[in-house]
Amino acid sequence: MPKLVQSLLWEVGPVENAEDTPGVFVPAEVPGAVQLDWARAQGWPEYWVADHFRAYQGLEDFHWRYRTRLELPPVSGDERHYFVCGGVDYRFRVLLAGNVVHEQEGMFTPFELELTLRAKSGDWLEILVFPAPKAALEPEGRAQARLSNKPPVSYGWDWHPRLIPLGIWQPAALEVRARVHLRQVDVHYRLNEDFSEARLSVDVVTSEPGAAAVTFRLFEPDGRLALESSAPDLVLTAPELWWPAGEGRAALYTLEVLIDGVPAHRQKVGFRRIRLIMHPGAWREPAGFPKSRSEPPITLEVNGRAIFARGSNWVCPEIFPGLISAETYRPLLELAHAAHFNLLRTWGGAIVNSEPFYEICDELGLLVWTEFPLACNRYDGEGEYLRVLDQESRSIIRRVRQHPSLALWCGGNELFNAWSGMTDQSLALRLLNKNCYELDRDTPFIATAPLGGMAHGDYRFRDEHGREPFQIFGAAHNTAYSEFGCPGPSSVDYLKTFIPEAELFPPKLGTAWETHHGLGAWEMEPGTWLCQQTIEHYFGPSRTLEELVERGQLLQSEGYRFIFEEARRQKPVCSMALNWCFNEPWPSAANNNLVSWPHRPKPAYYAVQAACRPVLSSARAPKFSFQPGESFEAEVWLLNDSPGPVAAGSLEVSLDIGGRRLVLASWAFPELLANQNARGPTVRCDLPNGVERTFQLLLQVSGRPTLDSQYTFVLQNGRVPSAALGPRPLNA
Amino acid sequence: MPKLVQSLLWEVGPVENAEDTPGVFVPAEVPGAVQLDWARAQGWPEYWVADHFRAYQGLEDFHWRYRTRLELPPVSGDERHYFVCGGVDYRFRVLLAGNVVHEQEGMFTPFELELTLRAKSGDWLEILVFPAPKAALEPEGRAQARLSNKPPVSYGWDWHPRLIPLGIWQPAALEVRARVHLRQVDVHYRLNEDFSEARLSVDVVTSEPGAAAVTFRLFEPDGRLALESSAPDLVLTAPELWWPAGEGRAALYTLEVLIDGVPAHRQKVGFRRIRLIMHPGAWREPAGFPKSRSEPPITLEVNGRAIFARGSNWVCPEIFPGLISAETYRPLLELAHAAHFNLLRTWGGAIVNSEPFYEICDELGLLVWTEFPLACNRYDGEGEYLRVLDQESRSIIRRVRQHPSLALWCGGNELFNAWSGMTDQSLALRLLNKNCYELDRDTPFIATAPLGGMAHGDYRFRDEHGREPFQIFGAAHNTAYSEFGCPGPSSVDYLKTFIPEAELFPPKLGTAWETHHGLGAWEMEPGTWLCQQTIEHYFGPSRTLEELVERGQLLQSEGYRFIFEEARRQKPVCSMALNWCFNEPWPSAANNNLVSWPHRPKPAYYAVQAACRPVLSSARAPKFSFQPGESFEAEVWLLNDSPGPVAAGSLEVSLDIGGRRLVLASWAFPELLANQNARGPTVRCDLPNGVERTFQLLLQVSGRPTLDSQYTFVLQNGRVPSAALGPRPLNA
Repeated sequence: MPKLVQSLLWEVGPVENAEDTPGVFVPAEVPGAVQLDWARAQGWPEYWVADHFRAYQGLEDFHWRYRTRLELPPVSGDERHYFVCGGVDYRFRVLLAGNVVHEQEGMFTPFELELTLRAKSGDWLEILVFPAPKAALEPEGRAQARLSNKPPVSYGWDWHPRLIPLGIWQPAALEVRARVHLRQVDVHYRLNEDFSEARLSVDVVTSEPGAAAVTFRLFEPDGRLALESSAPDLVLTAPELWWPAGEGRAALYTLEVLIDGVPAHRQKVGFRRIRLIMHPGAWREPAGFPKSRSEPPITLEVNGRAIFARGSNWVCPEIFPGLISAETYRPLLELAHAAHFNLLRTWGGAIVNSEPFYEICDELGLLVWTEFPLACNRYDGEGEYLRVLDQESRSIIRRVRQHPSLALWCGGNELFNAWSGMTDQSLALRLLNKNCYELDRDTPFIATAPLGGMAHGDYRFRDEHGREPFQIFGAAHNTAYSEFGCPGPSSVDYLKTFIPEAELFPPKLGTAWETHHGLGAWEMEPGTWLCQQTIEHYFGPSRTLEELVERGQLLQSEGYRFIFEEARRQKPVCSMALNWCFNEPWPSAANNNLVSWPHRPKPAYYAVQAACRPVLSSARAPKFSFQPGESFEAEVWLLNDSPGPVAAGSLEVSLDIGGRRLVLASWAFPELLANQNARGPTVRCDLPNGVERTFQLLLQVSGRPTLDSQYTFVLQNGRVPSAALGPRPLNA
Repeated sequence: MPKLVQSLLWEVGPVENAEDTPGVFVPAEVPGAVQLDWARAQGWPEYWVADHFRAYQGLEDFHWRYRTRLELPPVSGDERHYFVCGGVDYRFRVLLAGNVVHEQEGMFTPFELELTLRAKSGDWLEILVFPAPKAALEPEGRAQARLSNKPPVSYGWDWHPRLIPLGIWQPAALEVRARVHLRQVDVHYRLNEDFSEARLSVDVVTSEPGAAAVTFRLFEPDGRLALESSAPDLVLTAPELWWPAGEGRAALYTLEVLIDGVPAHRQKVGFRRIRLIMHPGAWREPAGFPKSRSEPPITLEVNGRAIFARGSNWVCPEIFPGLISAETYRPLLELAHAAHFNLLRTWGGAIVNSEPFYEICDELGLLVWTEFPLACNRYDGEGEYLRVLDQESRSIIRRVRQHPSLALWCGGNELFNAWSGMTDQSLALRLLNKNCYELDRDTPFIATAPLGGMAHGDYRFRDEHGREPFQIFGAAHNTAYSEFGCPGPSSVDYLKTFIPEAELFPPKLGTAWETHHGLGAWEMEPGTWLCQQTIEHYFGPSRTLEELVERGQLLQSEGYRFIFEEARRQKPVCSMALNWCFNEPWPSAANNNLVSWPHRPKPAYYAVQAACRPVLSSARAPKFSFQPGESFEAEVWLLNDSPGPVAAGSLEVSLDIGGRRLVLASWAFPELLANQNARGPTVRCDLPNGVERTFQLLLQVSGRPTLDSQYTFVLQNGRVPSAALGPRPLNA
């Protein structure tokens, strides 16, 4: 806690070369991005509307020189001036009165400069930001990021425009500190086997070791003093444990460090033990000779309790990370919490999130699978690349390890697949494993996802073989579905905010529909993410935008509903379902996300929220569309992920076809133990001939309506041409 | 190079407690083992005959106190006395004139003591060795080793008696050194991408840094001076590369370190680059969604060239590692080399081999897959266990990394299988990965074997479903067969050296047949390793020991022949075939080994030698035994693992049935490129009715008899009872 934090007034200007002085400076917002400053000064339209973002792309290859004129507040002999900066994106040089005082590559390592005897009021403090790093000889795209530690998503993705932020993206300020102040506080603890005791040790480094008395206080979650100590080792008996959402309270203690009796640092501490364990039966595989290895563990065990991880893949909530604050994170994380999620995977294509993200996750009981910023590239740099990765990963680990919400470390996304080409031998991943071992060995580390047993994809409601999630996931036997997608269009009123009116309907290539990922987004499927031909397959042509969107959103909702519930039915072999993806960094026309930018739920959000209730009735249907007169069937389940039992009861299964109610069966289900499902009957009925387009399957639990579930299916009358089965160009 | 090395006269005696003085001392051989010293003094019979080893087992729980009376040679003021010891097995304490001067756990870390001002002639130097470490509460067996870094094989295995060595197992001597002497020399080098340049750096630590001029000389393999330098960085252009056997010459340079112009250290340096790479086509898997990871790479690439690894699993050549010397290693390694092997896996159940092993492998071009001493246990110790593992692994890595024969590091044996229960999360394996990264990052590291894609087993000629190697490996699709076994009995004259005459025939439980692993050895199959019921299945009862042994050895030979050749036919998906096992630590009655203790080839050795010729003709048959009148068939191949092409030619396929020659086909095979096989025709013929027990398939390459191959099959006349298909107790 510095005695004074003084913000600075910055300006910034572009130059061709590192040594140049900008011809023009524009006002700069810090934290922020040079592109936003420049656009503001030029009066450019919002980058997220239509295809205005293209104008920003030319800015990535300049050097940018920030400057501020120092005004140093007067200090006593027992006080010091510091310049403190949380992060600059990406490579930069700091100059004080024209002299280089710091150089760095890497956006995740903060830095500070003591100014006390070095600077005087009126001096220029400058930060020269280098152009966006690009691996030589690579075509425009994510591969350009493969020799740097910059998040590759900015280089363009199937749901993210190419727009590479640069600039001071974390707070930067002048601080007045006491001569003796804290330089570093690290809290470690170990819970004993039965969780009856936590042994804390606090590593403290002060600016003048030994010059002052350092003492410690630990406060209970309710604020009462729990422990007070002049030694850095504290033993807490009967700690209240931190539990993820749905399992118990996310209890947070507060640790205070005092210097000469004055509070100098406060941080939350949550006591929990997290492991990755093998699922029941896992050791029985593989069977027979020749025998390979058993699959790696992916079941999360928290405080000795195996949990089913329900959640989503978290991507950047903004294109420009300098725009992200606690106010960006909170509404999104509250939506994740309200969806009954207990795990977010912070995907390695994007940034490692800032402190407010973890603080809110700590508070809400959201576990965080934290990936280092590597994704879908072959990171095979050595020397300088590994040096920066070492620096950046150590900074990341030292910061994030303090949070109880941290569930596991992961080297990055899909690195062991063909499109990345990395292996267990890759030095970058061995270095990350090493650093995690050295700095945070009690937190699990996995090199990448998917590992053996785990799986990613599909990302369509209907694949090139006509398979739906009902068949794809119904036949899968994976230990974790750490990515799966069902695309859906954004809502009509939302589309109107960023797609020019004339382009709204019908959706066409070459319009904002394409720029905003509705068409031609994913190279494996030309119609992504709108997937109009899939919508037509089930419903025929749509006459209005409203009709098209409603149908697409129904597919997304029912697809996600099935996959989440099916993954849960596959417990305990499967222990994790994380859809791709939760949020988005700007408005998409269509996308696999559940929540539109900045924090507006799509209908699929509510379907997933229903599928993720800790306890619910659930139906396993073989497919989405039926012919009139065809036999319908569904297997009925009761799912319980909760840590408590579910009382026996009665469940009624019925169909609602055009308002006509058809009761199929009633299941007297037994009591369910904690975290255990029950598989009930398979119900069947011949569907009537009729003209309805959709019908509903209803599961109703007598006296417990919060466990009821409802599913929508399609009745097709055979008008759909069979040619619609294969992929074909849209708007051809 | 010390000025004087003076050996010491040791004696040793057992005590109950660490503080006790032995009531009796017996002469001790160093290096050696306390059990051998004690047995020698007591006049016990050889431990390797009959079941005499049992008498030795009681010695493992004593403390043993070694002592020697120092006689310090006179030295000048510029000279120093040192006591130098290469290793003590396992936990020990060193006392000088009654005072504790060193304590250590771990047999792979050498230690030395400067005596100059600490000791005088007449002082006792004592080494107190603690009892064999045993994890509490574990039953007798390998699990007792799971919290120590002692090789677990000594605790009993299916081919190794329980006999846990203790004592000074490496040389220990008094040295007179110059005041300024070398304490440590580490040579690192990096080859550039096209191998045209090697950049060496030599890290030298002297006893008095800066007190003397350190210079360097590098000599060509032929002894000519290549480079001379006063700086520790040397650049060698156009280095002659070190190649594994079959690929080129194992060129070894000599590096000399001089102190003030006087040679003080000499070591061999071989220049090569080894990587694990993905096999062709590997990135195409897995196909489809949901998609898991691609299998990890296991193809060895040496100096940019992918090679097929042919070899074997190396186990302890002696029960007592203190008995092992260069003279133990050399005949065995020369047999491995003569078998056309290029890779030995030094299995983690046993010791990490001593310097002479690696020196001879360097010389012969035998690559070494080096495992840390972990096997088939759950090594989940933390604190002290990890501290010793850290110390031991660092000692091992720093020593072995200097050898060009080192191909890869491996955490240990079968750790990711049910019987071990370790996972990628295990701290021990993460620590080993970390230490290998820090100290030897250019050498591949794998956590264990098998990994995904790789496989271990089977270890029988005929499994409980009646499947033979022909079907098991013909249907397998693994990337590496890093263990597979075919058991066979030892030769008759050899059996007679350690099985009492009265017990020789018929083999029975409760005799030396059982003690020496012929019966009841492997828990999965009661008849192992003699597998008499399998022999009977093909040949009916054997009337003599000679008949039994001959038949069993035929099965072993033909089984191994098939598997090695089949693995090679599966190239490039498969890139490795290492049978279990090469050698053995004492005489076995039956075992999967190729070479009997100490270095006596079994008939299977010659079959494997033939199957591992770099170029050979090869036949793929569907099974081992046929009925008279049945159709025989075989797919004909030409296999080429060599780095050169094989000229086109003609191959004749015939059967020899009781001396009658039946020509089946002739194949005009094309030119083969380097390291590429050719698949030829499938030949067929109806077998005649007859009384022969066996027949031969002959492949003969016109004008190139060294490529000819020959296979033996069995003609069965249906007399074998079908009950022989399932396992049943022997001698019941």
